[in-house]
Amino acid sequence: MINNIYIIGVGLIGGSLALDIKNKRPDITVYGIDKSEQHLIEALELNVIDAKATLDDLDKADLVILSVPVDAAVELLPKVLDKVSDFGLVVDVGSTKLDICKVVENHFKRRNFLAMHPIAGTEFSGPKAAILDLFQHKTNIICEVEKTAFKLQEKALNLFSEIGMRMRYMNPEAHDKHIAYMSHLSHISAFMLGKTVIEKEKNERDIFDMAGSGFESTVRLAKSSPAMWTPIFKQNKENVIETLEGYIANLTQFKNMMKNDDFEGVYNEMKDTNYIKQILNGLK
Amino acid sequence: MINNIYIIGVGLIGGSLALDIKNKRPDITVYGIDKSEQHLIEALELNVIDAKATLDDLDKADLVILSVPVDAAVELLPKVLDKVSDFGLVVDVGSTKLDICKVVENHFKRRNFLAMHPIAGTEFSGPKAAILDLFQHKTNIICEVEKTAFKLQEKALNLFSEIGMRMRYMNPEAHDKHIAYMSHLSHISAFMLGKTVIEKEKNERDIFDMAGSGFESTVRLAKSSPAMWTPIFKQNKENVIETLEGYIANLTQFKNMMKNDDFEGVYNEMKDTNYIKQILNGLK
Repeated sequence: MINNIYIIGVGLIGGSLALDIKNKRPDITVYGIDKSEQHLIEALELNVIDAKATLDDLDKADLVILSVPVDAAVELLPKVLDKVSDFGLVVDVGSTKLDICKVVENHFKRRNFLAMHPIAGTEFSGPKAAILDLFQHKTNIICEVEKTAFKLQEKALNLFSEIGMRMRYMNPEAHDKHIAYMSHLSHISAFMLGKTVIEKEKNERDIFDMAGSGFESTVRLAKSSPAMWTPIFKQNKENVIETLEGYIANLTQFKNMMKNDDFEGVYNEMKDTNYIKQILNGLK
Repeated sequence: MINNIYIIGVGLIGGSLALDIKNKRPDITVYGIDKSEQHLIEALELNVIDAKATLDDLDKADLVILSVPVDAAVELLPKVLDKVSDFGLVVDVGSTKLDICKVVENHFKRRNFLAMHPIAGTEFSGPKAAILDLFQHKTNIICEVEKTAFKLQEKALNLFSEIGMRMRYMNPEAHDKHIAYMSHLSHISAFMLGKTVIEKEKNERDIFDMAGSGFESTVRLAKSSPAMWTPIFKQNKENVIETLEGYIANLTQFKNMMKNDDFEGVYNEMKDTNYIKQILNGLK
């Protein structure tokens, strides 16, 4: 039975998990731990958490959810694992999985840790960004499930299923490689689109009312938190660079087709890529 | 008074204009002209248009809306202008404005033409994609307004205001230059993101359930119609190539920062680009 949960980092993901869990299991007490006192106050006011706690309380935890930027996670996780009891489970929710799995690979409580990545979020952050039902029908990638004590994983995965997640099992190397394409590249693509447009238009503010829903959708991720994303790119450096090289090569080829007036080529590039429709529809 | 409107091209934009106009002015009869008989049948069934017509009927038109791909528009516009009466106005809705303005610059009925670009749309096309209220609070860029007969522009602009558009006046050169950044680049950015991911993941279909809402939003425009977009890129070739060069340079610089472990630089790039938040909020 899970009677209490300690969430370290009551932001978008930690806070949204808290809201969903409290909604489905009102008997569970959710404690919040955060280095920002302001965030804890907000989380309490918004009923995202039931009470504040500190790292010293973790020996009482049935479940600890570590939802902090991935650089902080790698530093905190071994200390958190030190503190939990034999019956406590620690999960992390980071967007990179190799470094976090490595840092506890030989930890004496490795079986009390489950590495996961819920593919869900928005471009906002902090407790105010927490929303109900964020995880409904969302994929939750679980890494190295075999390294976690069976009874502990079972009760946690039941809980995550209950709030709508679909579990998907993968090794951390494969996770980091694929997520670079499916998520990290999108963020850089959006950030650099935003940068290119801002640079060009900085002296002509009025121009931005030419922005339509297309620009808004494509640039949306450029609102994301640099404090969260810098350590992700750092941890997943090699994979992300590979995606950028592929992306830049494709953009350069498209540009050269245009330069050479090969508009049949331009047409075919777009026609072939329309295939993304079927892929995205297949996800529904 | 506008009693009838002839829409050439009853797709996403033409069809959505028809729906809004019929909604606000039920007394206006909307005729549809389309080279696809299937589109006309669909448009009739969906009540997007009241009746079918042909180019030969245009002498009876109070308002003609030319909403076809921009290569077809440049070819059709002079012929359409030939046919309208002295009291008829022709507007186009294309995403490029320089070529269309040039092609009728010396036309004897230039005063019966108004060049415009409503910044609105979705990634879908055809009459089934037509939606009500698409133009609510959307910018409508008007080019060379001084070249259109005053009484004709007045009645058309009143109608477009009534369906929610905000008019913005600009010369065609400035339009094409800025829209390359605010719209055309977003499309190529999305298409090449889609291509890069499809290429990498083509043998691993299951990977696409790692796609979250972020990827979906960033890649959305890659569903757009190549038949519509190829001629836009062709007509706006020089400006689009300039945006691509800027975008590729920024991506390359970002990649090099990562290679050189300059993650402070990476952080600052993102932090600075977060400014896009204020810009987009300013649009609401």
